[in-house]
Amino acid sequence: MPDRLIQPPDPAQPIPLYRQLYNNLRAAILTGRLKHGTRLPSTRELSESLNVSRNTVLNAFEQLLAEGYLESAPASGTFVAMTLPETPSQPAPRSGRVEKPRWSAIARALTAAPAMHVGDPARKDAGHPRAFRVGLPALDAFPATLWARLVARRARHSDARGLDYQATAGYRPLREAIAAHVTVSRQVRCTADQVVIVSGSQGALDLVARLLVDPGDPVWMEDPGYLGARGALVSAGAQIVPVPVDAEGLRVDVGRKRCPEARLAYLTPSHQFPLGVTLSLTRRLELLAWARSAGAYLVEDDYDSEYRFHGRPLAALQGLDDSGRVIYVGTFSKTLFPALRLGYLILPPALIDTFLAARAFVDGHTAALEQGALTDFIVGGHFGRHLRRMRGLYAERRATLLRALDGLPLEPFAADTGMHCIGWLPSGADDAGVARAAAAHDVDVTPLSRFSLTAHARPGLLLGYAGVDPAGIRAGARRLALALKG
Amino acid sequence: MPDRLIQPPDPAQPIPLYRQLYNNLRAAILTGRLKHGTRLPSTRELSESLNVSRNTVLNAFEQLLAEGYLESAPASGTFVAMTLPETPSQPAPRSGRVEKPRWSAIARALTAAPAMHVGDPARKDAGHPRAFRVGLPALDAFPATLWARLVARRARHSDARGLDYQATAGYRPLREAIAAHVTVSRQVRCTADQVVIVSGSQGALDLVARLLVDPGDPVWMEDPGYLGARGALVSAGAQIVPVPVDAEGLRVDVGRKRCPEARLAYLTPSHQFPLGVTLSLTRRLELLAWARSAGAYLVEDDYDSEYRFHGRPLAALQGLDDSGRVIYVGTFSKTLFPALRLGYLILPPALIDTFLAARAFVDGHTAALEQGALTDFIVGGHFGRHLRRMRGLYAERRATLLRALDGLPLEPFAADTGMHCIGWLPSGADDAGVARAAAAHDVDVTPLSRFSLTAHARPGLLLGYAGVDPAGIRAGARRLALALKG
Repeated sequence: MPDRLIQPPDPAQPIPLYRQLYNNLRAAILTGRLKHGTRLPSTRELSESLNVSRNTVLNAFEQLLAEGYLESAPASGTFVAMTLPETPSQPAPRSGRVEKPRWSAIARALTAAPAMHVGDPARKDAGHPRAFRVGLPALDAFPATLWARLVARRARHSDARGLDYQATAGYRPLREAIAAHVTVSRQVRCTADQVVIVSGSQGALDLVARLLVDPGDPVWMEDPGYLGARGALVSAGAQIVPVPVDAEGLRVDVGRKRCPEARLAYLTPSHQFPLGVTLSLTRRLELLAWARSAGAYLVEDDYDSEYRFHGRPLAALQGLDDSGRVIYVGTFSKTLFPALRLGYLILPPALIDTFLAARAFVDGHTAALEQGALTDFIVGGHFGRHLRRMRGLYAERRATLLRALDGLPLEPFAADTGMHCIGWLPSGADDAGVARAAAAHDVDVTPLSRFSLTAHARPGLLLGYAGVDPAGIRAGARRLALALKG
Repeated sequence: MPDRLIQPPDPAQPIPLYRQLYNNLRAAILTGRLKHGTRLPSTRELSESLNVSRNTVLNAFEQLLAEGYLESAPASGTFVAMTLPETPSQPAPRSGRVEKPRWSAIARALTAAPAMHVGDPARKDAGHPRAFRVGLPALDAFPATLWARLVARRARHSDARGLDYQATAGYRPLREAIAAHVTVSRQVRCTADQVVIVSGSQGALDLVARLLVDPGDPVWMEDPGYLGARGALVSAGAQIVPVPVDAEGLRVDVGRKRCPEARLAYLTPSHQFPLGVTLSLTRRLELLAWARSAGAYLVEDDYDSEYRFHGRPLAALQGLDDSGRVIYVGTFSKTLFPALRLGYLILPPALIDTFLAARAFVDGHTAALEQGALTDFIVGGHFGRHLRRMRGLYAERRATLLRALDGLPLEPFAADTGMHCIGWLPSGADDAGVARAAAAHDVDVTPLSRFSLTAHARPGLLLGYAGVDPAGIRAGARRLALALKG
């Protein structure tokens, strides 16, 4: 009588009784407590011995029969299936003795790369942003109520077609709105066909790297440079060629000397990340000439160029390109908010078809609802208005930060654009150590050395000012002063 | 007097006058009409000759000075910059003479792979779904009003923290809700820590392939099998080992013979795609034993298992795994709607950290808003209710389809689960040809041969029934009958 081998269901548990019985029977079979070919008691007998209804037993049996754990023979009853060719060995403990996974080269490269946003940066900030996190826009000044209204309207009016799979390239009206915006405000030359909506600028960089870089291909990268781009390039197996940055931006001459045959160059021309310099026109033209002759692509990451405080934003490199060598990357993480995960690529026409065909296998497309809301935000004029407001706000916060840093042993460099400034440390200083000391004082500064591809970088700190209000900036600067005193 | 070289701004255009002047001056410089070192007329002179205000000229100059197109010398005026080392050659026409891009091996492999959803499937359907598209849920029966309410509420209550970058693994309460759901309904054994929210099942498969497969690594794939998985594996450079499928699912014995050392096996155990068979318990145990001994991973794509019409859904393979070899892939594309782009991975504990570290470089994380709404949908009991309703609806639609196919020269096979059935054609028939004929009659059937990895597959058609109402199913069957008559 195997019924003692079967644990009775517990009516106090939230799981239906038949399901508990199913689980218990299955466990008994899998662990070998109920052997192959064992005849089970009748449903009536089991219902009595386990103190459950006969229906409960019938339901559990039906499921186990369907899954092949049990077999029934007409007129002779129900048996543990004979066709299990091997009983699983004693279940290993779920944790211990797990073999070390064999990771791909990509996985190994990515985990060796300096991390960016692993974990939960917002949680670290315990609800309000800490001074001086880099890359954080003024979320307190985002028109969240308006945004919620636009989202709600789109959600209400979504029909079956809006719920279905969408175009791989993104929502057509959004692509048109982006094309119109970058044409006017960034002097980009494109049509909506060239715009592909992706998951933030990271989704764009990842796609570009995978489709244009083979393992071992050399790629120019600004040194110091953006870790997200570096990760995407490394994950494609790129051999990173560090190219130094001076006051005019990327040293094209050095790149040409080190590796004239690079496949790609990653650039932040409007506001170099992290140094903040602008790529000069001379260098832009040099770069375009090199890209043409080398058949290389220039990836222009225009992450925060909308925030220029004097004059108009600088024109994009893409607008100077007449040979289809520039891939423009934009994001709404800095202009709206990061959790939106909407960015875009503007592709040279010759690249469009292959990018779309390949992208279908990467993540299908980007979710539809917020693409619709974003379209309404841009077309309704809210985007332009928000950018203008933020420009004013960030200019103020930048000025507040520079005043607050006065007297600190830092040499500030604050470009006329962007969302962060640099505080240079005396040469020989350990900027990572300073950042750790600042963290102990609850200040989030990012050491410049983190972005270096080569050993000898001038030490300095990145100080984000856009996401923190003036009181927070002043308080942060006071705590930073304490940290710098040691 | 170079001012004749400068096109005057046109007040009829929607672009501000200073911006037009800026564009025109820049174009004149870049095309060499204004040579290096040329002295420009004074702002007063230009304002008169171009018939614009002096402020307009000043604004344009300011911008061109900032960008390095112009230089100013105190007391002597404004000049075209001398520091342009090379004038760009005559701008090539934007279209013609573009060099053929050099694509990565990944890009070449992906564009050679059979396409899935390139383009816009919803648009093809012109607003209402065509019978018998595969993989389409009943969007007409989705509780869109309730969903809109949940989304709107989340949007209204989103604070600065909700707008910020989010955890790479996804929204914690959603991970908990998913863990609870799959534990009860799919017998998956996991904690919320093992759940990672990604962009649909495609995002999951892509991530798995990249992190666990190196170029040239052999991977078992069901033959015939799912094109999305094949694309993700191919893009990681996998060497696909086709393993045939019979009435009990994957022929594990054949896989072991062909390639015992495969790194990974891709599987749809609950309802094999496209054939619809269920992987038997025997095979499941064989597979787990092989994976343990080979150190391989089993990727369980549980894409539509919630729809089983008799008895309870079959337990997931993952629940039988005691050695951390099964990676479970789930999606809400079939249970809610595809445009949501939310799917999830359930990882063996040993894989979690590396997946999260690497994923930060792929797309950061998944957008926050709809993760919140989905959490409310599940926790509020709406998800369970919707699944139950859809189970009834799809069972009806399946029965309608089978009745409507009666008399057609097709041998139907409709598994007791899922969203589509198979119509077998006489051996030797050209299923792709039949599908083309059906398309000419406005019926969307998918030829089985499309999913074959090897040449000799039995010809048949996939007929999706979930997304089409009974009238549409009957009309589709009538049109299909015409197409089959030729």
